[in-house]
Amino acid sequence: MSATKEEIVAFMALEFPQAKYKVEAVGDNRSTLSHDIGIDELRPGGTVSGPVLMSVADVAIYVAILGTIGIVPLTVTTSLTINFLRKPSAKARIIAECTLMKVGRTLIVGEVSLYSEGSDDRVAHVVGTYSVPPKRDEVTL
Amino acid sequence: MSATKEEIVAFMALEFPQAKYKVEAVGDNRSTLSHDIGIDELRPGGTVSGPVLMSVADVAIYVAILGTIGIVPLTVTTSLTINFLRKPSAKARIIAECTLMKVGRTLIVGEVSLYSEGSDDRVAHVVGTYSVPPKRDEVTL
Amino acid sequence: MSATKEEIVAFMALEFPQAKYKVEAVGDNRSTLSHDIGIDELRPGGTVSGPVLMSVADVAIYVAILGTIGIVPLTVTTSLTINFLRKPSAKARIIAECTLMKVGRTLIVGEVSLYSEGSDDRVAHVVGTYSVPPKRDEVTL
Amino acid sequence: MSATKEEIVAFMALEFPQAKYKVEAVGDNRSTLSHDIGIDELRPGGTVSGPVLMSVADVAIYVAILGTIGIVPLTVTTSLTINFLRKPSAKARIIAECTLMKVGRTLIVGEVSLYSEGSDDRVAHVVGTYSVPPKRDEVTL
Repeated sequence: MSATKEEIVAFMALEFPQAKYKVEAVGDNRSTLSHDIGIDELRPGGTVSGPVLMSVADVAIYVAILGTIGIVPLTVTTSLTINFLRKPSAKARIIAECTLMKVGRTLIVGEVSLYSEGSDDRVAHVVGTYSVPPKRDEVTL
Repeated sequence: MSATKEEIVAFMALEFPQAKYKVEAVGDNRSTLSHDIGIDELRPGGTVSGPVLMSVADVAIYVAILGTIGIVPLTVTTSLTINFLRKPSAKARIIAECTLMKVGRTLIVGEVSLYSEGSDDRVAHVVGTYSVPPKRDEVTL
Repeated sequence: MSATKEEIVAFMALEFPQAKYKVEAVGDNRSTLSHDIGIDELRPGGTVSGPVLMSVADVAIYVAILGTIGIVPLTVTTSLTINFLRKPSAKARIIAECTLMKVGRTLIVGEVSLYSEGSDDRVAHVVGTYSVPPKRDEVTL
Repeated sequence: MSATKEEIVAFMALEFPQAKYKVEAVGDNRSTLSHDIGIDELRPGGTVSGPVLMSVADVAIYVAILGTIGIVPLTVTTSLTINFLRKPSAKARIIAECTLMKVGRTLIVGEVSLYSEGSDDRVAHVVGTYSVPPKRDEVTL
């Protein structure tokens, strides 16, 4: 029913070929991702851009879902709420820690805390909801 | 700078005279509240009504703020996002556990996990933002 | 497929017997509700309480859904985001104007603008999502 | 106090040098932006990626703010909520129409409707909040 980290990494490479995150851990309704910060992720002034944070959080929830219900295509984000809490460091990787709060038949809700690596203070917090097909056809890669 | 539980309870009794929650604990950017469930809080079918959950969460963040920055009037809710996760029990108290994620100069952001007492599964999750006056005049009751 | 205003009013009287709103209009993915403001809706200082605004908005979306897909039980709020924009008048009714933005097979998303009657400035804005059963059994009252 | 479209375009080119949107109109608490869709904006299957939609909406609110209060640095996004409503076309530009709902002393709230050009149905809806310095030092370019 659930997918392994290797299966998820292979699937995500097909789905998001340009993405620069790395799946650090997945399983048990959770996931941890990291994202390198380079010139493409920064805005003038040295802030990590908001869309990068949203994007990493979105993928972290998606990965946690795949790890929980298996590789189910047609899983789509239906909503996402982000609160920006602190200015992220321009020199540290972004770490995303996701917990699924609800795994329902058609709706899954996850939350993500985002950190600059090496700090315990969250730079942002995300809640995302995902729609999954009621009858799920799992895919074997 | 911060307020004690007793000061907060006295202040809240003036601000929300009809409210039926109880402050269980407050301090260190956190608060725990409980709310009895009776006929007024239920909808036909035995569900705790959504506005009751929103209301308890809103107050829990407010209490955590007072416990952190002191009794500061003019603190107002600017936004609140609630995700309903599970049907709450009609027979158990609602427990709200709040953590402040950011305590800024003009903006405070808190999150609240809501439970039916005796269960570890959240029935709802709330993120709320509050505006506080930049220059704070604390009140002594 | 859709329900008339009279059918909705009868159904809502069973579902929310204590509610004090009035359905002013419904149809075409829209609804308009009003809510009287009395001592129960006010906080010290003369502000309409936040939970009253959230509650009216929640019901406005529910009414617009019933007017669009018919009286479908098991329709439940899954999330609600409110932004408080201005202090509502203590002396005017609250008017809620709802538009459904998406009517999907399992998910419906609506937005609500809330006004103090007589003013064109919104006091709050709400986005709510509702889960509906994929296969809908309509109810005839 | 407010900035012209030309001033805003010049400022945004400095702030977001890589961005691919175009400011179509700005003024009177509103803005309209367009964004070309190419291979970088698409995911496998031909959907415009979620982060692109969030990013365009974020910028649309920022542009509307600059058009209203002038070129004020230190204006930062504090929260953003997006609801994905329909699959955007892979072949049409994204059009973002922003309205500011509240322009406060320290907080500005805007909403954005996103369309695939040529369609009247929204593909997504965004509400964003921005923090502005209480005492604003405007910049002349």
